[in-house]
Amino acid sequence: MSGGFGPGLNALDRLTVILSRIPGVGKKSASRMAYFFLDTDPGYSHSLAEQLLALHRSIRRCSRCGSYTETDPCPICADTGRDPSILCVVERPQDVRIIEESREFRGLFQVLGGLIAPLDGIGPDNLALGQLLGRVRSGGIREVILALNPTVEGDTTALYLRKLLGELNVAVTRLASGLPVGGDLEYADRLTLSRSFRGRIKF
Amino acid sequence: MSGGFGPGLNALDRLTVILSRIPGVGKKSASRMAYFFLDTDPGYSHSLAEQLLALHRSIRRCSRCGSYTETDPCPICADTGRDPSILCVVERPQDVRIIEESREFRGLFQVLGGLIAPLDGIGPDNLALGQLLGRVRSGGIREVILALNPTVEGDTTALYLRKLLGELNVAVTRLASGLPVGGDLEYADRLTLSRSFRGRIKF
Repeated sequence: MSGGFGPGLNALDRLTVILSRIPGVGKKSASRMAYFFLDTDPGYSHSLAEQLLALHRSIRRCSRCGSYTETDPCPICADTGRDPSILCVVERPQDVRIIEESREFRGLFQVLGGLIAPLDGIGPDNLALGQLLGRVRSGGIREVILALNPTVEGDTTALYLRKLLGELNVAVTRLASGLPVGGDLEYADRLTLSRSFRGRIKF
Repeated sequence: MSGGFGPGLNALDRLTVILSRIPGVGKKSASRMAYFFLDTDPGYSHSLAEQLLALHRSIRRCSRCGSYTETDPCPICADTGRDPSILCVVERPQDVRIIEESREFRGLFQVLGGLIAPLDGIGPDNLALGQLLGRVRSGGIREVILALNPTVEGDTTALYLRKLLGELNVAVTRLASGLPVGGDLEYADRLTLSRSFRGRIKF
């Protein structure tokens, strides 16, 4: 019973420890969350628990694009109104959602499941490259858009994919990198500014 | 199937909606959390769900101090090694934990369950004042420390409690308010600076 707590708050402590494993959630935030669950109607914790239990039961990977879905193929792959000749390559399933929310793209997706990061021990073998190559080789795709983050890992992976896809009859493009809309030259970092110069377009 | 999502990610959407009700968790954080749960081993979501279901079943309010506990009375109230003549009044159960972690206080606690906030419709009737008065009236308490936040609501509640307890034979004190240790005069706000002057101590 040292410090006055001892066995008294075990359920709360256990919940706090589990919550603090969520990325971006520190010990303090986890504790605040746990107290919120306690202060709130038990029905809230129950529905959260139910949804957590339902999550992996309901959601699987789409066998075509690798995105998360409740149906296989996913609604995007199954949508005959979309353009199957353009394939957008993304790192994670959540990137599919972000791009969908922009309503800018009407083709299909391929989720890589990661980026090449030698320091983290992630090589090409860890990515869904076989699936990507298979889809491109089976024909009907005229453009592959690499929608990877403009980071070291994203750049490395993009270069690798350009080489890999270069042997096939397909155009490989990459999302433009440069100043964010509404941004200020003053606050742009040197690399972003440099990219926006190299990628400048006729006006 | 508008936007390409439609029914495809319902379990994920439902989880995101529930998570975004946690204070301080916006739509984006909730979505990131939901994807983390999906990306992680299902065992993690299951243990989180189990702990959530166990929470309200295991934890109740201590019938003496009002803090959260698995046993009644709570380990602090049951600890005969503590000084029962000093009562520390706090707003919420988590304040008990914060004060315990400082290892500065060896008396007992009383949780008010809120602060007087007329604009939010919280008056003295909503606080555990009967419990506090009962404990003081039953004797044996020589000091009541008001450990309430130095906010408008905390100040209002402290003034109210001072008046209420003033009729009883007990010393009423309040935690010192002033410059945080390691802080800088330059960054102290006017009110904090003013309080640190008024509360200055002989050196």
